Amino acid sequence: MKFGGTSVGNIDRIKNVAQIIKKSIKDGNKIIAVVSAMSGATNDLLKKANEISNNFSDEEHDLLLSTGEQVTSALLSGALIDLKIKSKTLMSWQIPIITQGGHKNSRIISVNTEKIKKFLDQKYVVVIPGFQGINENMNISTIGRGGSDATAVALAKCLNAQHCEIYTDVDGVFTTNPEMNIRAKKIDKISYDEMLEMASLGAKVMQSSSVQSAMLNEIEVYVKSSFKDVKGTKILNQNKISYEKVITGIAYTLDDSKITLQSVQDRPGVASSIFKPLYEKNIIVDMIVQNISADNLKTDVTFTVKRSDFNKTIDIMNNLKSNLNFEKLISNNKVSKLSVIGAGMITFPGVAYKMFDALSKKNINILAITTSEIKISVLIDEINIQDAVSTLHHVFDLD
Amino acid sequence: MKFGGTSVGNIDRIKNVAQIIKKSIKDGNKIIAVVSAMSGATNDLLKKANEISNNFSDEEHDLLLSTGEQVTSALLSGALIDLKIKSKTLMSWQIPIITQGGHKNSRIISVNTEKIKKFLDQKYVVVIPGFQGINENMNISTIGRGGSDATAVALAKCLNAQHCEIYTDVDGVFTTNPEMNIRAKKIDKISYDEMLEMASLGAKVMQSSSVQSAMLNEIEVYVKSSFKDVKGTKILNQNKISYEKVITGIAYTLDDSKITLQSVQDRPGVASSIFKPLYEKNIIVDMIVQNISADNLKTDVTFTVKRSDFNKTIDIMNNLKSNLNFEKLISNNKVSKLSVIGAGMITFPGVAYKMFDALSKKNINILAITTSEIKISVLIDEINIQDAVSTLHHVFDLD
Repeated sequence: MKFGGTSVGNIDRIKNVAQIIKKSIKDGNKIIAVVSAMSGATNDLLKKANEISNNFSDEEHDLLLSTGEQVTSALLSGALIDLKIKSKTLMSWQIPIITQGGHKNSRIISVNTEKIKKFLDQKYVVVIPGFQGINENMNISTIGRGGSDATAVALAKCLNAQHCEIYTDVDGVFTTNPEMNIRAKKIDKISYDEMLEMASLGAKVMQSSSVQSAMLNEIEVYVKSSFKDVKGTKILNQNKISYEKVITGIAYTLDDSKITLQSVQDRPGVASSIFKPLYEKNIIVDMIVQNISADNLKTDVTFTVKRSDFNKTIDIMNNLKSNLNFEKLISNNKVSKLSVIGAGMITFPGVAYKMFDALSKKNINILAITTSEIKISVLIDEINIQDAVSTLHHVFDLD
Repeated sequence: MKFGGTSVGNIDRIKNVAQIIKKSIKDGNKIIAVVSAMSGATNDLLKKANEISNNFSDEEHDLLLSTGEQVTSALLSGALIDLKIKSKTLMSWQIPIITQGGHKNSRIISVNTEKIKKFLDQKYVVVIPGFQGINENMNISTIGRGGSDATAVALAKCLNAQHCEIYTDVDGVFTTNPEMNIRAKKIDKISYDEMLEMASLGAKVMQSSSVQSAMLNEIEVYVKSSFKDVKGTKILNQNKISYEKVITGIAYTLDDSKITLQSVQDRPGVASSIFKPLYEKNIIVDMIVQNISADNLKTDVTFTVKRSDFNKTIDIMNNLKSNLNFEKLISNNKVSKLSVIGAGMITFPGVAYKMFDALSKKNINILAITTSEIKISVLIDEINIQDAVSTLHHVFDLD
């Protein structure tokens, strides 16, 4: 059971988490609780580090930040003991949880389960601070922000846990953002792949890299709310889901911008000429669409970047103009990427047609299209996004 | 070099501590820095624990509180590295520093110096969180509040340090409290014994148990301010001090109360009958004065207890009345213990006379007297304390 920052955000919430664990023990479970820092604690520590130095030591940074989860762990163990439940906090250096890779961004490579099992066998709840381990130099090393998910998945794997429960401040994964469409429904079961494609919706729920890790190790993940006792969302292997619906969910972005280079000379290496300078400036390109030119001489290239990189990207493209020899640069910094996602679409033809048809009936213009096996994405003007989401949500039987 | 809670109370003060260390490195020193939690941090953690449970687990309590010093350590190392000084925090489990005894109140029994020496040899400042170690179960255990002094003294001992510097928010040890007497002067050198006797003045400076430990191991301690670059006070062996003055300092209490039992039947076991019930109620008795009775039948017994225990003590004594068969109980809950302290007084006769004479000339009545080799204490009405302190401060050439 992993409890995120808001789930342990204050003393009452930590006591509430202790009650959730108590209930699960009554159901006959042996429990490892992985906790994040209390919400705000990590930012407070980071603020102190930044005030000390603009270039704070990575090694000491990890030692500093790791105290956040240590505090939550001790408080949660204390709360459990107060409920007459045996509980023991094990720090990563006591277990040990071994990490590899640089400070601030290492990954867990092994967990010695001996001590954990010893306490579990003696009916203890084992509380473990997330987001940290020790490296080959016996120093504390953190695994990147939000890394408590990764700790939970790694422990579930090494201990052959029945499943991994991620407690958070939302009820689960939804067919689309409920704030955008009041007809959004909680999804009971979703495959790892779909969850990854839903990242733009699911980011608040669980880190993508932890979903990947769960997928690789086939660990069933159960995402649920720590505030309400309602059914959450199970993330599991596609073959364990019987798809009644073609589409599982609808995702969208609100921070994309689009750039089209018209009539670029179509010669080998042109794509690399466009994207190399963006890569060098650390600008992430998402969609890329290039049509085959009618005459094999000229082509149009469209791509999207995050809105925050828009101006920088325009400058770079204008600098390339003489080299690329394109006719015109057309840009739009208020576009959205709208995606329908569903592992079921492979066996149901006509999803694309149904999607485009529904949008055209609403007079929503499609600016670009890309597809993958379980996802179709279109680019539209952001102004149309709410209308588009509710239309597709209805058309694909998600209401 | 040990830095207390106020010395590392905020980011600017931690940066200031880094500058103090930098200066000492320039003077050619190898340095271990022991730090306390930032002032307020420990109380904040304790508050959280109390909100979780009235009976918070001792083991988890220690894990919780130890984060305070860990945070300071990482921040100080970061500040040193920012000044281009190599620095490395070593946690007690990395060294290890081994403790024995129960949680919340254990003591350091050994320090493995290997890792510390390795870093010192490579010109690192080694930063170590005070107040903690790990016990035989590999769990973090704290050594009582204010215990960072003990960590510093233990490290100084195990590493054969040249000396141990205690940085605090006062300039050093004074001949008496400067707030009571503006003529109070900082003492350059004081013996361990004197320092212990000055406890009532020195408590703000250094913990008594750490002074004792320094005395046992003959570690020179240098108490100084982390806020002003002024000479502090050296605490060392009596034989390393050439006493120019008979008296080193004048201490006093402002929280004592006095009880006299008049005409107690003088028989064997009477003293134990008086003090056993006080001991059983955890009431600490300080001064005890009993005169030999003229007729060997009746005697007067006077003793002092802290003012907060006064009412409880009176009740206990009244309950004993039939048993002890004393005539009258006389009490005064506004008395002060006034002490002149000086290792030099052994070789200078007449200190007692000089003291009593000076007080009598000021019409200050002495209620009781006790003496030790390096201290003479008298009990007086608290109302006279300021006058008494300034009189003795002048008489013994301390102005």
